[in-house]
Amino acid sequence: MQTSELQWTAQEQSIAKAAFGKAYKREIEALVQVVRDQASSLSSTDDIWRLHDFLSARRHELDGKYDERESALIFVFADLVKEGWLSLDDLQGLDASKLSKISALTRMM
Amino acid sequence: MQTSELQWTAQEQSIAKAAFGKAYKREIEALVQVVRDQASSLSSTDDIWRLHDFLSARRHELDGKYDERESALIFVFADLVKEGWLSLDDLQGLDASKLSKISALTRMM
Repeated sequence: MQTSELQWTAQEQSIAKAAFGKAYKREIEALVQVVRDQASSLSSTDDIWRLHDFLSARRHELDGKYDERESALIFVFADLVKEGWLSLDDLQGLDASKLSKISALTRMM
Repeated sequence: MQTSELQWTAQEQSIAKAAFGKAYKREIEALVQVVRDQASSLSSTDDIWRLHDFLSARRHELDGKYDERESALIFVFADLVKEGWLSLDDLQGLDASKLSKISALTRMM
């Protein structure tokens, strides 16, 4: 799959950017909720460092995940769809071959 | 100040250990409260990573701070008294020269 050679029109770039923002917002909102829940039941040192470890892991994951390079977009979107942060509907407007690749990847990952 | 050459009797070691535990418990309880407060007002990505940075810094600080080596105890206790996690009363039973060194250091730090 020569995804790195796919061309993204200005309109597609705009759709991709909006979808990124939407997914990130959803993922952060869910993270905020998890952190609040964990924090409300904190009581020991272990609990605190467990929260710290959790945040370290999530930060590392999120830093690497939202890769906006065009060569990565198909894979990033497949990942986000697979994890439930985006639906294929959020990506409508991309050309059919991209949507089809994203959809295929979500079933392979 | 030849603190590294101070001898600690078994009874003093026991007092030191209890004081360490007391200070650590107090400090962690305060930290739990701060983390809960911060977590309850989390809303953005920045808030989450600010909490993460805060926990990273506190963990690093706490890991280094509670140094139980006898050569470090006088300084550690002075630090804990200075910060309010211990009072000199919590250290009663240590010999007078140690208490006096701790007390002097809290005024110098």
